[in-house]
Amino acid sequence: MDQQTNLDRIQIVLVDTQDGANIGATCRAMKTMGITHLALVGNREYDENRVRTLALHASDVWEQAKRFPLLKEALSGSVLSVAATRRRGKFRKHSSLNPTQLAEVVQKTGDGLISIVFGRESDGLTDDEVAMCSQVVTIPTSDQFPSLNLSQAVQIITYCLYDTIKTYPEGANPVTQDRCEEAALKASEALDEIGYFKLGQEKLWTFRFLRDVFVRSALTESEIQKMEKVFVKMARIKAYKNTDYDE
Amino acid sequence: MDQQTNLDRIQIVLVDTQDGANIGATCRAMKTMGITHLALVGNREYDENRVRTLALHASDVWEQAKRFPLLKEALSGSVLSVAATRRRGKFRKHSSLNPTQLAEVVQKTGDGLISIVFGRESDGLTDDEVAMCSQVVTIPTSDQFPSLNLSQAVQIITYCLYDTIKTYPEGANPVTQDRCEEAALKASEALDEIGYFKLGQEKLWTFRFLRDVFVRSALTESEIQKMEKVFVKMARIKAYKNTDYDE
Repeated sequence: MDQQTNLDRIQIVLVDTQDGANIGATCRAMKTMGITHLALVGNREYDENRVRTLALHASDVWEQAKRFPLLKEALSGSVLSVAATRRRGKFRKHSSLNPTQLAEVVQKTGDGLISIVFGRESDGLTDDEVAMCSQVVTIPTSDQFPSLNLSQAVQIITYCLYDTIKTYPEGANPVTQDRCEEAALKASEALDEIGYFKLGQEKLWTFRFLRDVFVRSALTESEIQKMEKVFVKMARIKAYKNTDYDE
Repeated sequence: MDQQTNLDRIQIVLVDTQDGANIGATCRAMKTMGITHLALVGNREYDENRVRTLALHASDVWEQAKRFPLLKEALSGSVLSVAATRRRGKFRKHSSLNPTQLAEVVQKTGDGLISIVFGRESDGLTDDEVAMCSQVVTIPTSDQFPSLNLSQAVQIITYCLYDTIKTYPEGANPVTQDRCEEAALKASEALDEIGYFKLGQEKLWTFRFLRDVFVRSALTESEIQKMEKVFVKMARIKAYKNTDYDE
């Protein structure tokens, strides 16, 4: 498979964009780099004229955009979801990619939808929105004025994708983010059963951490089943010991 | 010397930009990548409001922009000048860099002003304007819609410069483009004297070719003198032979 097939499974997700002009400019930025799937999260109405004036010959990207009330729904079915943000937030991700590294990750990721998520013009993505993604991409910028316009950020990232991705990966077939979430939930519940968590928030943090690790490692269905089994079995042994053999 | 010193000797040259909003967006794009020298070519008046609305905290780039009636004046004193264009024009440059390759060239180029030149929103740079530059940079884009917005093109190129340039080159000290032009003129005149050119345009083409080669090889003053001498001496020998020894 080829470059275009790989670019075609990427969707740009805009969360609660405030100005239609920025959506139009984003459509143009995307299409110049061969990426045409746009997802809009939120219920805002946009001024068609503002969108189309800046989209120019990329108005088809706008016309075919999918609308989702919630980010979670837009990400559903993704094998990889990446938050574009400068801020790491309180649910800090364990590593942040630069745009070229992101392109290399996409290049290697097997079959399935890849979502790259951009926040509001005024204040980007919330901590919870970043936490819903399994990775973070950060564009290096000058300390003197680090604030990129939304469509400029999309332009840099899509350029790096277009410039780096030359082929479609063969063989690998990772499960979706939803499936990873299900496994991470099962794992954290198993940990909970054996009294692993002391603090109220610990279970949520661990769940998110495990989910991100599962997504980033691009597990196949049989691998994620093996991973679930590790936690479930471990909890059973511990529970068994607790009730019958503990001294 | 460091990254910022290297970025500080780069100027973005906008030729006859039509809409002030694009100048504002370009100022913002530049400043996010640590590049603050802007040169505006042409005599157009711009609506301050349109510029400042999009420049935001990069209005200082606009306020300090230099104005030049002609491109030649804006490029004067450059050790390297690069035309950003998709079209190669009739004075075809012998190679076109991509943005990362351009950044690598800048990274290696010794002391002096570097100019990166962008054309009009409607139809870019003319063939003559491209010919005034010593290199061409072309941003790879999708065939489906290859037309980048002006400030988006500036954003991609300044991002690649910011991301690649980490240090300032030591030692080398190339002469300016004007000096290369002088040497190329001397060389092509020497060729002319010995009847080298058959067609009317050949002298101009050869002059431009030699100038570009001299600039691209980043010659020092003593090297360019050596180069001039090669042509002048060769012409003298040939002229001598023609008059006295030809059979």
